[in-house]
Amino acid sequence: MFDRKEKILIVGLGLIGGSYAQGFRRAGYYVGAVTRSQESIDYALENGLIDSGTNRPDREYISKFDLIVFSLYPKTLLSWIKENQAMIRPGALLTDVTGIKCSVVYEIQGMLRPDLEFIGAHPMAGREVYGVKNADADIFVGANYIVTPTLSNTPAAIEACSQVGRILGFGRIVRLSPEEHDEMIGFLSQLTHCIAIALMNSRETEHLAQYTGDSFRDLTRIARINDKMWSELFLMNKKALLKEMDLFIEQIKKIRDAVQADDLQLLQDMMRKSTERRICFDKK
Amino acid sequence: MFDRKEKILIVGLGLIGGSYAQGFRRAGYYVGAVTRSQESIDYALENGLIDSGTNRPDREYISKFDLIVFSLYPKTLLSWIKENQAMIRPGALLTDVTGIKCSVVYEIQGMLRPDLEFIGAHPMAGREVYGVKNADADIFVGANYIVTPTLSNTPAAIEACSQVGRILGFGRIVRLSPEEHDEMIGFLSQLTHCIAIALMNSRETEHLAQYTGDSFRDLTRIARINDKMWSELFLMNKKALLKEMDLFIEQIKKIRDAVQADDLQLLQDMMRKSTERRICFDKK
Repeated sequence: MFDRKEKILIVGLGLIGGSYAQGFRRAGYYVGAVTRSQESIDYALENGLIDSGTNRPDREYISKFDLIVFSLYPKTLLSWIKENQAMIRPGALLTDVTGIKCSVVYEIQGMLRPDLEFIGAHPMAGREVYGVKNADADIFVGANYIVTPTLSNTPAAIEACSQVGRILGFGRIVRLSPEEHDEMIGFLSQLTHCIAIALMNSRETEHLAQYTGDSFRDLTRIARINDKMWSELFLMNKKALLKEMDLFIEQIKKIRDAVQADDLQLLQDMMRKSTERRICFDKK
Repeated sequence: MFDRKEKILIVGLGLIGGSYAQGFRRAGYYVGAVTRSQESIDYALENGLIDSGTNRPDREYISKFDLIVFSLYPKTLLSWIKENQAMIRPGALLTDVTGIKCSVVYEIQGMLRPDLEFIGAHPMAGREVYGVKNADADIFVGANYIVTPTLSNTPAAIEACSQVGRILGFGRIVRLSPEEHDEMIGFLSQLTHCIAIALMNSRETEHLAQYTGDSFRDLTRIARINDKMWSELFLMNKKALLKEMDLFIEQIKKIRDAVQADDLQLLQDMMRKSTERRICFDKK
């Protein structure tokens, strides 16, 4: 769909943007970058992650690129496109890496110039460290890459976006609607982060650390969280997240009330159900 | 406090009872066993975990032992002592491995013959498999061993019980009151199991397994749970568990309401607190 003559621009050189840059460059593409920090550009140039970069978008530079990958916080992504889309070459394809889709994809598609096309994607990979200095294209190996087309996307763009996943070496390339994606992420990722945050907020814990076993440690690992990014992601997925939180709160209250009422039978039923359902989540 | 001439009886040859037996026998002690299943006794004899064993407690056998370790479900433990304490040699020391303490320790101390002494202990070790065939004394290496003395325990019994932990190679031997123990376990272990159960009960999950990352997998690992044992443990720690559940439910609702109200500031505050508190739980 697109070949190695195409030039790729990464907007936002953080952990994921930097890893995309490295992956594309290894595959033989010309990779440019726009990011606020000159230090990040210098690092990426010195370490061979990009061919060129600028900390100030201008028409001459931006208009060179055929594919633009946005790796920005969701609100920053929306305002970047609003302010700078006039500089983009007609016919260019735009995609992103944002962890929520409905409120990003439809918003962008609604304001985009008609001679450009945006298609959402979510690389389900990451690390618990940040910034371009931790970039590593190997984090994509074996991970899921989700393409979230809408009715306004062309077959060519859907195929090109899937190709991005293949070039970067993702283990599995899946197609979901933005709605299906956000529901899945609301449950599997956002709700679990809410739980870990709530647990660590529920009492002073310092004196308990010495007794902690692996189960508590595993459950709360994700309580160390980038507050700026995740609070945006939560609020931009409000509808799906609230639905998942309400389902969970209902069940935890059901357990609470069963304990209060000495309802051994109900507790055992819920434990058997959780045991049975958990089996299909074991790593193959 | 007690030396290798003392004979040790394990009541209940499961994973933990069998691992205790192996650990004591390796350390040179004579180890006997009472357990319901003749198959477990045969296995333990064939594999050198015990010196002798019976599936029917009788006075002649039981009265040989100086130290008795109970590795039974909590309710079974209480009825075993009620029914069989008459067979125990005067002056014997009794201890246990139960995961909750108040409702076991005070109950037993209240009904015990005055010429016997019971002191509670909790080896914080385990595996996700069951039965004597999975016994392995190495699970204790580096783990916490908690002794929970009460006002009715003698210094000699407290010391002997601590010695058990040292013989079995535990990493750290700690003393807590039964109340402190149950509060700690209510938060670190029981509440986290409740969360994993509630999460797996909150929706059909099978079609989501393919998208699951490590954080969801880690959080729900403990959703595979022995329903008979854990439902007893929950109900026998009702007061402490309800308190911890209510604290947690309050916090998860706080996050829910902050999402509903678009309260970015509150979400970020809670995330920063969870991040900060989680740091001291990293493995050293």
